[in-house]
Amino acid sequence: MSKNHNILVIGAGLCGSLLALRLAQHGFNITLVEKRPDLRKVTLDAGRSINLALSDRGLRGLRLAGVEEAAKELLIPMTGRMIHEKSGKTFLSPYSGRDDEYINSVSRPGLNKLLLNEAEKMPNLKIIFNQSCVEVDHETPSATFEDFETGELTTYTADVIFGTDGAGSVVRSSMVNDKEFLLNISQQWLGHGYKELEIPAAENNGYRTYKNALHIWPRGEDMLIALPNLDGSFTVTLFLPYKNSDYCFENLTTPEKVEEYFQKEFPDVLALIPNLTEIFFTNPTGSMGTVRCDPWQREGKILLMGDAAHAMVPFYGQGMNASFEDVAVFDEILTQYKDGLSSGESSWETIFNEYEKVRKKDADAIGELAVDNFDEMKAHTGMEIFQKKRKLETAFENEFPGEYYSKYSLVTFNEDITYSEAKKLGRAQDNAILGLIHEGKLPETMSLKEKLEIVRKQTQVILNTKEKADYLKY
Amino acid sequence: MSKNHNILVIGAGLCGSLLALRLAQHGFNITLVEKRPDLRKVTLDAGRSINLALSDRGLRGLRLAGVEEAAKELLIPMTGRMIHEKSGKTFLSPYSGRDDEYINSVSRPGLNKLLLNEAEKMPNLKIIFNQSCVEVDHETPSATFEDFETGELTTYTADVIFGTDGAGSVVRSSMVNDKEFLLNISQQWLGHGYKELEIPAAENNGYRTYKNALHIWPRGEDMLIALPNLDGSFTVTLFLPYKNSDYCFENLTTPEKVEEYFQKEFPDVLALIPNLTEIFFTNPTGSMGTVRCDPWQREGKILLMGDAAHAMVPFYGQGMNASFEDVAVFDEILTQYKDGLSSGESSWETIFNEYEKVRKKDADAIGELAVDNFDEMKAHTGMEIFQKKRKLETAFENEFPGEYYSKYSLVTFNEDITYSEAKKLGRAQDNAILGLIHEGKLPETMSLKEKLEIVRKQTQVILNTKEKADYLKY
Repeated sequence: MSKNHNILVIGAGLCGSLLALRLAQHGFNITLVEKRPDLRKVTLDAGRSINLALSDRGLRGLRLAGVEEAAKELLIPMTGRMIHEKSGKTFLSPYSGRDDEYINSVSRPGLNKLLLNEAEKMPNLKIIFNQSCVEVDHETPSATFEDFETGELTTYTADVIFGTDGAGSVVRSSMVNDKEFLLNISQQWLGHGYKELEIPAAENNGYRTYKNALHIWPRGEDMLIALPNLDGSFTVTLFLPYKNSDYCFENLTTPEKVEEYFQKEFPDVLALIPNLTEIFFTNPTGSMGTVRCDPWQREGKILLMGDAAHAMVPFYGQGMNASFEDVAVFDEILTQYKDGLSSGESSWETIFNEYEKVRKKDADAIGELAVDNFDEMKAHTGMEIFQKKRKLETAFENEFPGEYYSKYSLVTFNEDITYSEAKKLGRAQDNAILGLIHEGKLPETMSLKEKLEIVRKQTQVILNTKEKADYLKY
Repeated sequence: MSKNHNILVIGAGLCGSLLALRLAQHGFNITLVEKRPDLRKVTLDAGRSINLALSDRGLRGLRLAGVEEAAKELLIPMTGRMIHEKSGKTFLSPYSGRDDEYINSVSRPGLNKLLLNEAEKMPNLKIIFNQSCVEVDHETPSATFEDFETGELTTYTADVIFGTDGAGSVVRSSMVNDKEFLLNISQQWLGHGYKELEIPAAENNGYRTYKNALHIWPRGEDMLIALPNLDGSFTVTLFLPYKNSDYCFENLTTPEKVEEYFQKEFPDVLALIPNLTEIFFTNPTGSMGTVRCDPWQREGKILLMGDAAHAMVPFYGQGMNASFEDVAVFDEILTQYKDGLSSGESSWETIFNEYEKVRKKDADAIGELAVDNFDEMKAHTGMEIFQKKRKLETAFENEFPGEYYSKYSLVTFNEDITYSEAKKLGRAQDNAILGLIHEGKLPETMSLKEKLEIVRKQTQVILNTKEKADYLKY
């Protein structure tokens, strides 16, 4: 039935590879085109988000395509944040009070390779590398690609095109630039850039610091983080303002200045990165932004998905997870309408519309939460009141595992509730707890059960106030 | 002192002309470059916002440059909205209960000519037409222009460049496209387009319908408006969805369909526009959007102003007024820092930063209000509860002229309060009155003074609720 539909997927990164694989499993004929060389043959992207945090929503997408178990072999569990104070003191702040809730460090190219390998096994899926999209014709629909080596142009036509070509999406640009189409778009950049560094492995692939955590050196306006790799190394990322700060990318221009900065802010790291200044000046400085747009689809012929539709800053560790969840949400709707596609009772336009209707608000929500979480990571994790809140939440989750879920847990470990629901409830809880601690309304003498009751009541008060204010929008 | 600073102003529309004139009055050397031909010699722009509504904030800018009195000769006062019901019944809904508060219809090219004439009188100001900006170099700074007739390229360097080149600003695009700069930008389009039509003058430049009003035919999802011109004609604008509606630009494709639509929705207008279908298919369909961006300035060398910085939809009649107010707000800051420019105690960067700090929130506020007002015009003006609200507000303003100002009045007639303050208070008042009417808490038996007290109290309750909710943002 649906086998005769030809689908063009532009971009074979994490989202595009999983999507193409899953669509092929549905029986469609897939052409998957990637502008870069085959990363299974060529090493790419030094200095750009080498590892990522995979959690429940991402695993849901992988499970759907039957690759969850294979992916699990690539994962390193991270059970909490290891906070490094300036003094060198460290403490572990668990992500949850429930033992089975943790995130996982995974190599981006490693996971991408796995997905490409699986995709390539499908007889109805063809992958083309080294071809960069230069034009999209939404009417046919078709897209034209330039071969990286020969410069030759090739046009592929299809029944529908999926744009999974990332934050700088060419498919999205083709919509932005077409004045007939009127794509709503917003691009908001952070005033911080990032730089990837590396803590090398110890002997025999040992780890130079605690393996099963996401390490954070929170310093208020700037921070360093580190995620473990399978080979014993850690990928380290420095987040720093571009300018207008004592230390910023604009003034860290000499090895001496970089050493001075690390000596002052991250002395314990200095010892772990032998060639710090060399990597610092070799690796590029990346920028981070949030992209929102709508509509995601054009007349049932083109659909944006993943970062192309909703790029976000990396601070909730949800970019990849949201993209994989996109595939799962889309799959649910596709499954519902698929039979109608050949009978003519449904159309790609209906499917795309339905998908956007369900998914857009959640993509917006995680985009917003990701920006908030930058403050949480770089500043709040180092603050006493925030640490008290986290301890209390962890205790709630530990003692009453079926009754309390922190914002982090709602967003990261609860695929059954949407990002937008998680945002609403999670923010209200945060407000409630911080307010109650600040006002001294959760004294040590109070039982944990009593504390939970008070937090719940106050959360409800806040949700009601917010609802009233939203109602007053006119 | 400041005479030796060379300033390049790109775009000689309403904002650019007034800005250039005012900067020349300060003694700077001005080069004002416009891509289109001199509109004093060539008629342009058929079918694109021929007339506009000028009100207090706009007059403030003109006053500053000494051209308010000259401009007043071009104005036709509009004291209220003349609402045309489907039945043909009309009624006037005043803009204010105070007699001296009204808006003014003015010809865009007429006002632009006046400003260009005044600008040209300045010996230190040079206007160049027919040169389209193709590139901006922010470092020098300089800009390169292509001559429309000869194709020749010319580069002008300056101490600072002002981008006043409108909603589709090339100066802004140069910032967007420079990946080094990271301009935050948002473009949101309406699902409605617009089409300009005309009610011709009657004999001897007479008016075919009431002269001193802004006419509205509110029909829920679509509407027609008309503004008077000095020659007896009215410029009429149809606002209509692009698609997915019984009547929309997508399906109004034949003269018969257009006639049918007007016959059904605007039968009284059909009699006033003899060549309706001809104009309909000759004039272009325009799109409307809101553009927000920041920062408006780049390193003290380039500053965006007017629509280039904050394009808005036309429904509050504040686009031009906001642009002229930009010039007035900028002027105040410039005056404060001007002497320091030559002594080196201040810099253009300080002035630009200060301007953006003061002005950005107000540009955002009027952009938002303008979108809201589309609903008010096309739907609310035809609703009973809204008409009751307007009558009550007019009575308040009439009886207690020093005590009550409606949102419309705050935005349009009160240049002493900012757009953002007007938005906050005005929205709260709207909520209060609509809620009170809905709940029957303003019965006929109550005195006007008592009603005002209740509205005030409820407004305060709403402002407090909003404040509480804003506080809960975390």
